[in-house]
Amino acid sequence: MMADTHRTTHICPHSLILTPESRRPAGCCRHLARFVQISGEARLALGEILVARLREREPDASTAALIKERLRFACAPCIVTVVGQPIRGHKVPEIEQLLSGGAVCLSLLHAAHALGFAAQWLTSWVAYDPVVKARLGLDNDEQVLGFIHIGSAAEPASERPRPALNDRLSQWAP
Amino acid sequence: MMADTHRTTHICPHSLILTPESRRPAGCCRHLARFVQISGEARLALGEILVARLREREPDASTAALIKERLRFACAPCIVTVVGQPIRGHKVPEIEQLLSGGAVCLSLLHAAHALGFAAQWLTSWVAYDPVVKARLGLDNDEQVLGFIHIGSAAEPASERPRPALNDRLSQWAP
Repeated sequence: MMADTHRTTHICPHSLILTPESRRPAGCCRHLARFVQISGEARLALGEILVARLREREPDASTAALIKERLRFACAPCIVTVVGQPIRGHKVPEIEQLLSGGAVCLSLLHAAHALGFAAQWLTSWVAYDPVVKARLGLDNDEQVLGFIHIGSAAEPASERPRPALNDRLSQWAP
Repeated sequence: MMADTHRTTHICPHSLILTPESRRPAGCCRHLARFVQISGEARLALGEILVARLREREPDASTAALIKERLRFACAPCIVTVVGQPIRGHKVPEIEQLLSGGAVCLSLLHAAHALGFAAQWLTSWVAYDPVVKARLGLDNDEQVLGFIHIGSAAEPASERPRPALNDRLSQWAP
């Protein structure tokens, strides 16, 4: 959970964005991600777009569901949309392009936390809906890899169940 | 470049492996990756398997190419194979499962560097060849997401061209 506190401006410094680029794994000589920043009043305007779109998709959507969409981008002061641009037929397999995009998203989380912010990597139907994608300015062949919500922590992150390492780690032998 | 130095044993402590699991992005309640560690003499045995397989694939492979395969896993003392286990039909879209796997790989790199090691995330044909995958113990539906080579830096990492941020960052407006 994140609070829209007083630090609502300029919390997405360029250094934060640059970090993932500088740490992108090897093999990808072309640039495989771009960033669309959503902040300020635009967050609420996007919420209205989502409400309208949900009404189209689900005419019987509940009031609670509509409110959730209205506020989807209102919880954090800054959201960085990581947009993947897969290159078909590139020497780097598409699966590696995606893995690289996942690394970019995680780097943004790490960079945000390193700067003292809290951050969450979220997606939902919004990341896949063609109408919403078009309104966000994405081309047909682009994909939202994540909405990185960046703000200040309103409460500590909850712990998650952790796997037993011994179940997931093996030593290879010929 | 990494050197197989004196620190050849126990350089893959469990804490290093656990780190990515603990930082896995939200949404994936099931475990989507497992780890196969390759170290010690097994690295050379795997090299011989690669040589034999390359001869099958490319009967005219050059001596240099065969030597490259023989030494592919010999440069770093420890290689952690990150194995993705996609779950078809899961509520988490497969693209997000892959992105999560990319995050796991990057977390391993970060964890290794945080512990004072150098690390590289590599793939190559070895990650996709069905015979090699079978010899590594992977099921048909599993995929190598990366070989994380962990060791000590023999030389500083070379700098890469960096993108111009202004070309890749935009501010969304309705």
